[in-house]
Amino acid sequence: MSGEVISQIEKIFHPRSIAVTGVSDKSDRLGNFLLFSFMDIGFKGNLYPVNPREDRVMGLRCYPSVREIEGPIDLVIISVHPKSVLDLIDDCVAKGVRAAVIFSSGFREKGEGGTRAEAEIVRRARSGGVRILGPNCMGLYSPSCGLSFFPGMPKEIGTVAFLSQSGSLAIMLGLFAGGRGVRFSKMISVGNSADLGVNEFLEYLGYDPETHLIVLYLEGLEDGGRFISLAKDISLKKPILLWKVGETEGGRKAAGSHTGSLSGSGEIWEAAIRQSGIIKVENLTELMGFITAFQNPYLPAGNQVAILSGPGGPAVSAADACEKEGLRLARLSPETKSKLAEFVPEFGASISNPVDLSLSSSFDQTLYPRATEVCGLDKNVDMIVEYISMLKKEMIEGIMRAQERARKPIAIITFMEYTTIESPLSRFFGYITREELTDLLLKMYRSGISVHATEQEAARVLASLLQYKRYLDSRNHL
Amino acid sequence: MSGEVISQIEKIFHPRSIAVTGVSDKSDRLGNFLLFSFMDIGFKGNLYPVNPREDRVMGLRCYPSVREIEGPIDLVIISVHPKSVLDLIDDCVAKGVRAAVIFSSGFREKGEGGTRAEAEIVRRARSGGVRILGPNCMGLYSPSCGLSFFPGMPKEIGTVAFLSQSGSLAIMLGLFAGGRGVRFSKMISVGNSADLGVNEFLEYLGYDPETHLIVLYLEGLEDGGRFISLAKDISLKKPILLWKVGETEGGRKAAGSHTGSLSGSGEIWEAAIRQSGIIKVENLTELMGFITAFQNPYLPAGNQVAILSGPGGPAVSAADACEKEGLRLARLSPETKSKLAEFVPEFGASISNPVDLSLSSSFDQTLYPRATEVCGLDKNVDMIVEYISMLKKEMIEGIMRAQERARKPIAIITFMEYTTIESPLSRFFGYITREELTDLLLKMYRSGISVHATEQEAARVLASLLQYKRYLDSRNHL
Repeated sequence: MSGEVISQIEKIFHPRSIAVTGVSDKSDRLGNFLLFSFMDIGFKGNLYPVNPREDRVMGLRCYPSVREIEGPIDLVIISVHPKSVLDLIDDCVAKGVRAAVIFSSGFREKGEGGTRAEAEIVRRARSGGVRILGPNCMGLYSPSCGLSFFPGMPKEIGTVAFLSQSGSLAIMLGLFAGGRGVRFSKMISVGNSADLGVNEFLEYLGYDPETHLIVLYLEGLEDGGRFISLAKDISLKKPILLWKVGETEGGRKAAGSHTGSLSGSGEIWEAAIRQSGIIKVENLTELMGFITAFQNPYLPAGNQVAILSGPGGPAVSAADACEKEGLRLARLSPETKSKLAEFVPEFGASISNPVDLSLSSSFDQTLYPRATEVCGLDKNVDMIVEYISMLKKEMIEGIMRAQERARKPIAIITFMEYTTIESPLSRFFGYITREELTDLLLKMYRSGISVHATEQEAARVLASLLQYKRYLDSRNHL
Repeated sequence: MSGEVISQIEKIFHPRSIAVTGVSDKSDRLGNFLLFSFMDIGFKGNLYPVNPREDRVMGLRCYPSVREIEGPIDLVIISVHPKSVLDLIDDCVAKGVRAAVIFSSGFREKGEGGTRAEAEIVRRARSGGVRILGPNCMGLYSPSCGLSFFPGMPKEIGTVAFLSQSGSLAIMLGLFAGGRGVRFSKMISVGNSADLGVNEFLEYLGYDPETHLIVLYLEGLEDGGRFISLAKDISLKKPILLWKVGETEGGRKAAGSHTGSLSGSGEIWEAAIRQSGIIKVENLTELMGFITAFQNPYLPAGNQVAILSGPGGPAVSAADACEKEGLRLARLSPETKSKLAEFVPEFGASISNPVDLSLSSSFDQTLYPRATEVCGLDKNVDMIVEYISMLKKEMIEGIMRAQERARKPIAIITFMEYTTIESPLSRFFGYITREELTDLLLKMYRSGISVHATEQEAARVLASLLQYKRYLDSRNHL
């Protein structure tokens, strides 16, 4: 059965032709947005707008119905009034369509009537050989397959997959993390999961050779046991990051997920998660930071951290944050200290851990790279935190060169918003353009250097890399 | 005694003339930076560079020593080698200087020799009537007084004061929060606090009519009892935000503050803080978010929160975050629900709390403002959280108009980094320039609308406003 689902999903991701309903040339409807998204990402196959009252939509020939399109249709995008969805499914069955993405909402999430309508859709689709994604979802995004659900999603192909019970989060992650140099293999917004759901796609992503890191946003689950069992095995090959919501009474009500879901039982869920190698996060900002760290991670051998900083105050705060996460400040070796003393300024600085590079580090772009290399090569150091108030190009390139020798996790805390602003200070410090920054970030992630908004996030991410390393070790010793 | 310190500090903040040492016209030394900072902020009095080997520095006549400047000198900025500081203090005494900011480091923080040198500096300064700020500090910033310690600090005058044991943090807060529309009354970087320290400046800020909100970054304290006693009273007039580091063993070592400081005793400190009305934060990002909320806050009457969101997933996460902070999801009144039903879309949306405005809220800029007004006027609602993936101008202006009627705390979670980027999406959603955004943010803070990076921060800030309200109530009932 499993192999069959994987192969069905693989085909859904590689349609030769797509029909898009709910479009109009007269007003900007959501179907237009979806149609435009396929054009924007560069879908290579045939695109067919469907609307019985129009001849052309967005420059393409428009068809009165799915049945009347000549040639085979692999995928149909359904974004019409919920009452019209069932008829469209019948059209799909008649046409021999492989799969339909039901964007339309107004089903299970709207109570009993909606639940019945949803069940009938699934019954007819299944008996007619059509697999369903949704309803109440955004669908699929994959730059390698030319699929998208929103204009402006990254066109470059990456290795991060996002599987989400919220469509808008998939869009936000694509746009925002994309702007920070994160590149995705696939995104799946499953919505109500009436047919294909989280477990099916998780299994698929575990198989998908394009995907090296799996990211999940979940509100609830139908079959938690299956999920945990899948996660345990997939975690051995690819890290899994999970943002799970609906963990409080208010959150569960908000999620509207009362039935049969593991979310009902916080402690059991927590224990199962811990034992499956899954790494938890709790908001979009943190999720983006964790993605940068888990894309191509060096896993730490132990919990000894070196902290490098220009500003002295944040270094102390970073030390607090690390210790609260169970990390310990590494005792730098005498050789490391004497090497640091060769270039760290005499005043307003420190060669003990945290290594304080002083305000001079804002002027001299070699200080961070040299300290990174010296501390990274110290056997007492398992991982490095660097607090850098403003990233600069040469500095980052230097840290990446140091990382080629150090090969240890490096988590950088910085204020990216300000790095790309030209200001009176640029005269002294220079600045990076947005394009340069995105390009630099992409390279940083690939060399095991992550970027974070706070010292607490950096500490959590390093502790999580260690937790993941220990999970792998524990499973390999079985 | 207290009145005398306040009046001395008031005079230090209003110098008629400043001498800056450690400057050179041949190379960019840190003294140049400090001199340029006074020019940049527009200091109205006389500026005198001091260097025996130069005639002119940065276009100004340069003096061989402080003693040889004609006319009175109120403030001297000392940024020379630590070994030369004592001679400069003697010059200050001889010249009748009122106060000296010792930027130079290499004193108490460098061990016993430094501690002795520092003590001798204070002894000679005190006996000669010179008050000392530092050593190892950045000094003073105040746009109304024309004082600054870094180029590019905001020139506009505000009501937020920052008192810091880290100079670089003062710079970062000024530049970064300044870029987000936060305006300051005064900043004081106290450094080693050899003479004037945290308690003296805290008392001064409690008095300072220009300051309405006091923000502290502390690593340790000499006299914690005095600090708590001051905070208890000042909190009644002005909220106090505190970022306290050195709370773990590693952090304390990093802070280098072992002696006589409250930081040695976590629990006692925590209890004292709780009883003094102080609001705690734990990193720079959170500090900036809390400043936006406490600048001109509406204080909530209770813990009932309404959540408004376009993206559905984050609304669930916001519900979790609020409940974990002790807030509860308000039960919206039937009238509120029927008013919401008039404009909230039928599908993909919800008029229960959290109110889901759906993807339509990205296209229709009136949805957030209308929902804000309706929920804000509901008696069951004490405060509002709004998750807005991208801020837009009309939307924000509409929310501010709604707030004029609602008058309740509103915390907005958004991704500011992306609001000001022109992209293919701007065609559909528009975008705000950085200047427009800064201006809008400034107005938002003034109308009791705060801005945050995560739902957890928004929830903590609302819970903190409630905590502050309860502190005021408890003291007023004494």
